[in-house]
Amino acid sequence: MSTNFVKNALGRMVPTSVNGKEQVPYMGVGKYKPTGRKYAPYIASCADYPADGNKIVPSLKEALIKSGLKDGMVISTHHHFRNGDLIANQIFDIAHELGVKDLVWVPSASFECHAPLIKYLEDGTIHHIEGSMNGSLGRFTSQGKMKGMGILRSHGGRYQSIQDGEVVIDIAVIAAPTADSFGNSTGDRGPAACGLLGFALADSQYAHKVIVTTDNLVPFPCIPWQIHGNYVDYVVLFDQVGIPEKIVSGTTEITKSPDRLLLAEMTSQFCDEAGIIKDGFSFQAGAGGTALSIGIYFADLLRERGMKARFARGGSNKYLVNMLEEGLVDYILDGQTFDLDGVRSMRENANHLNTSPFTSYNYHGKGNFSTMVDAVILGATEVDLNFNANVVTHSDGVLLHGIGGWQNCLFSKCTILPIPLFRDRIPVIRDEVTTICGPGELIDVIVTERGIAINPLRTDLIEKLKNSSLPIKTIQQLKDEAEAICGKPEKIEFTDEAVAVIKWVDGTVIDTVWKIK
Amino acid sequence: MSTNFVKNALGRMVPTSVNGKEQVPYMGVGKYKPTGRKYAPYIASCADYPADGNKIVPSLKEALIKSGLKDGMVISTHHHFRNGDLIANQIFDIAHELGVKDLVWVPSASFECHAPLIKYLEDGTIHHIEGSMNGSLGRFTSQGKMKGMGILRSHGGRYQSIQDGEVVIDIAVIAAPTADSFGNSTGDRGPAACGLLGFALADSQYAHKVIVTTDNLVPFPCIPWQIHGNYVDYVVLFDQVGIPEKIVSGTTEITKSPDRLLLAEMTSQFCDEAGIIKDGFSFQAGAGGTALSIGIYFADLLRERGMKARFARGGSNKYLVNMLEEGLVDYILDGQTFDLDGVRSMRENANHLNTSPFTSYNYHGKGNFSTMVDAVILGATEVDLNFNANVVTHSDGVLLHGIGGWQNCLFSKCTILPIPLFRDRIPVIRDEVTTICGPGELIDVIVTERGIAINPLRTDLIEKLKNSSLPIKTIQQLKDEAEAICGKPEKIEFTDEAVAVIKWVDGTVIDTVWKIK
Repeated sequence: MSTNFVKNALGRMVPTSVNGKEQVPYMGVGKYKPTGRKYAPYIASCADYPADGNKIVPSLKEALIKSGLKDGMVISTHHHFRNGDLIANQIFDIAHELGVKDLVWVPSASFECHAPLIKYLEDGTIHHIEGSMNGSLGRFTSQGKMKGMGILRSHGGRYQSIQDGEVVIDIAVIAAPTADSFGNSTGDRGPAACGLLGFALADSQYAHKVIVTTDNLVPFPCIPWQIHGNYVDYVVLFDQVGIPEKIVSGTTEITKSPDRLLLAEMTSQFCDEAGIIKDGFSFQAGAGGTALSIGIYFADLLRERGMKARFARGGSNKYLVNMLEEGLVDYILDGQTFDLDGVRSMRENANHLNTSPFTSYNYHGKGNFSTMVDAVILGATEVDLNFNANVVTHSDGVLLHGIGGWQNCLFSKCTILPIPLFRDRIPVIRDEVTTICGPGELIDVIVTERGIAINPLRTDLIEKLKNSSLPIKTIQQLKDEAEAICGKPEKIEFTDEAVAVIKWVDGTVIDTVWKIK
Repeated sequence: MSTNFVKNALGRMVPTSVNGKEQVPYMGVGKYKPTGRKYAPYIASCADYPADGNKIVPSLKEALIKSGLKDGMVISTHHHFRNGDLIANQIFDIAHELGVKDLVWVPSASFECHAPLIKYLEDGTIHHIEGSMNGSLGRFTSQGKMKGMGILRSHGGRYQSIQDGEVVIDIAVIAAPTADSFGNSTGDRGPAACGLLGFALADSQYAHKVIVTTDNLVPFPCIPWQIHGNYVDYVVLFDQVGIPEKIVSGTTEITKSPDRLLLAEMTSQFCDEAGIIKDGFSFQAGAGGTALSIGIYFADLLRERGMKARFARGGSNKYLVNMLEEGLVDYILDGQTFDLDGVRSMRENANHLNTSPFTSYNYHGKGNFSTMVDAVILGATEVDLNFNANVVTHSDGVLLHGIGGWQNCLFSKCTILPIPLFRDRIPVIRDEVTTICGPGELIDVIVTERGIAINPLRTDLIEKLKNSSLPIKTIQQLKDEAEAICGKPEKIEFTDEAVAVIKWVDGTVIDTVWKIK
């Protein structure tokens, strides 16, 4: 791959072109201003759709053929089943069987269950992936084995890229726990209920052809219609579209580790002393056991003081659902259910709302929900002295995680990263992170078991915490302490070959992932 | 106005250009196939919107100025308050005060409460109206006094025209019974609760600037968000945005006339004998007292037989709500609440759903709900021997009604028009209707007090009713009977000046409204 690189506003070398498309280097938060128009899908006509509303075709293969599947097309799927997805791999089995080549796969996220797709990345069925490359797919990418360059986007960035026409989806395949023959679909009920289908919203709105697959067909109307049948071309029936129990994964379970619970407790105390926890406040805890545990501590504080939160953003889990049911929070604005209690609550409780990357995260909208959240608690694999943080690569340089909503959440009023000071004796605070996913100016607080660092930009927080009993330190102090224990980590050696890029929420390129040696 | 005319597929003379824009003459049902792309709004950026989500500006005037109000702009409003709208007139008061000229007003419907706008049509503040021209505005238009040519569209046609970019809205003003400062809005609660805001959906999605006005501000999040704040630019607070009691009007009340109730009863019996009323069937009754009364008869039949309907499309009223609450229908798919029982039910009952012209009516979607309705009961001012029907002009040639969802509903599996054989001694069945709004091939049955005519195209219905006790006749027979009583009506004399056009659901021109002599 011969590619030109330029230095972006964070000093990172990023390619000027990715898979043949020109790129805008990251310019700073809020600096890049789009001037164009949204992507304009073709106008359809009811005259071309069945008058009885029945869009069922006998098989996914037939639906893909009717959708015009051919070389080079962009195929999208979503990840509401997380590691329990049963549909995505079948699409590419069919493509392979039909001899179709050079497809671009745009999942809203990929998981270990998609490792079988490596054979199609190897044989040219799939050219590259735009979406998270977790686990085996990440390692494959980091080893420079993917034909094209990977593109990682946040959930909001994925909506933005589809809305803005940076990604033009030819065929979207949506796995729906319940649907009618018209294509109205919901995730909140049915044997494979997974919660909501918000990640497929952009795909339904903008893709040229939309295929709904379901294992639970109901008579029209399928209520609620999280996905509008008016955007759907074909409906295909399956025995099973996903394994709902598998939506619970390592990153969606509450931690049991006492060290991590300490981080959650310190974070909660910090929020309290910073004046964030008050009647009508709002919060979001991202994936990752520590972050998710925070709800337990918030709940205790609210209960104790007879206060309630206005809303909690989810990833919902049973702890958040308990808060809603106990009346400690007015609303859950949910982007993704993290367990089956979340699914049940969304189905049964009118105050547990399904949101989408459009409402919550799209940076190229007229505002979004993320900026209205008082405190957001997220994870990170590394943080640097400027508070820049990494969530996609580990300190060995290997691409192992997706971005999820992480970048989008940074826009909250207070972004807190509770992280251990070191993992496997490797310090988490570094001179420079392997991959910058979020600019330090948006990251306000780092909470570690040995101290809390407040971003110097947040003089208001520093002032509020100046008499705190919490161990407030500088980030340099935290780094020094870690290195005193573990030693200074060696710099990873990469090749000069770019294997993937990290998009910022506005579609610009914030960093590059390099092939490992 | 010098305009060229061509004869369309129904033999009607229609202008080739309207207000400077080229037109496609009506080509037949399903014959015109759009080839272009949907309208592409400008890409916004969160960087240009307040980080705290608060979009409130002090006045409508300021919001309009910030929106760039200037000569020639297209301004849209909606009609959820029907004759109780308090916002639309204020927009043009402000425009007049600012000296802005030649605006195009695109209401989803207009009512008598908008008669004060005639002065702005006269002084050049408003150039023309695209939307229904009822009552005084209709008469004004029919007299040839409007500067531009009026354009009437169905509810679905309005969505289609905005989606397809035939109408490009510069500023949409939405009156919301409840909203938050981010612009999330709902119609189902608040002191001025009117039900739903579906008619403003297209406006919110496609308008360049969107202003929400409300008299009931709630803390974020406003639930449910019938209108997404992510589409909204400004929020303005008012003491009162609408008078909800006025959503009940002449066309939304059940009839008390024994003649009309007979028509409803005959219609119900017809549906029954035609095999339409069965477990799981669906129906819609349009505006107009006779049509709305049909629910009462359907309810009796269902109760008697222990059956239930799968869904009823509304215009909801208390009779439909009673059916839902009694369990005689699974769902109300509501496009517009016709009384305050409808509003309450929508707010309280999860099975009373708000729909939009996008889901229900847009002909340029991948199907819509209208074709899945088993029977639809509508009104008409005139019907001709070919079953073509008129809903916009009276037999004196004056434009007095909007199209509403009427055209869209014609796509149901059985379209029935219960109409009196004559009104004020003027026969309703004519050789030719004054204005064709719907092609006869989509109109299946005419029910009059003296007989029922089945469209000869519906041989299946003719067969089913062949031994009926109902007075089945030909439409010619019905016409002859009416003329035997009232005499043959004189042909109306028009000038050769076109004052408005009627769009078909696909954006083509189905007929012309002529200036009266």
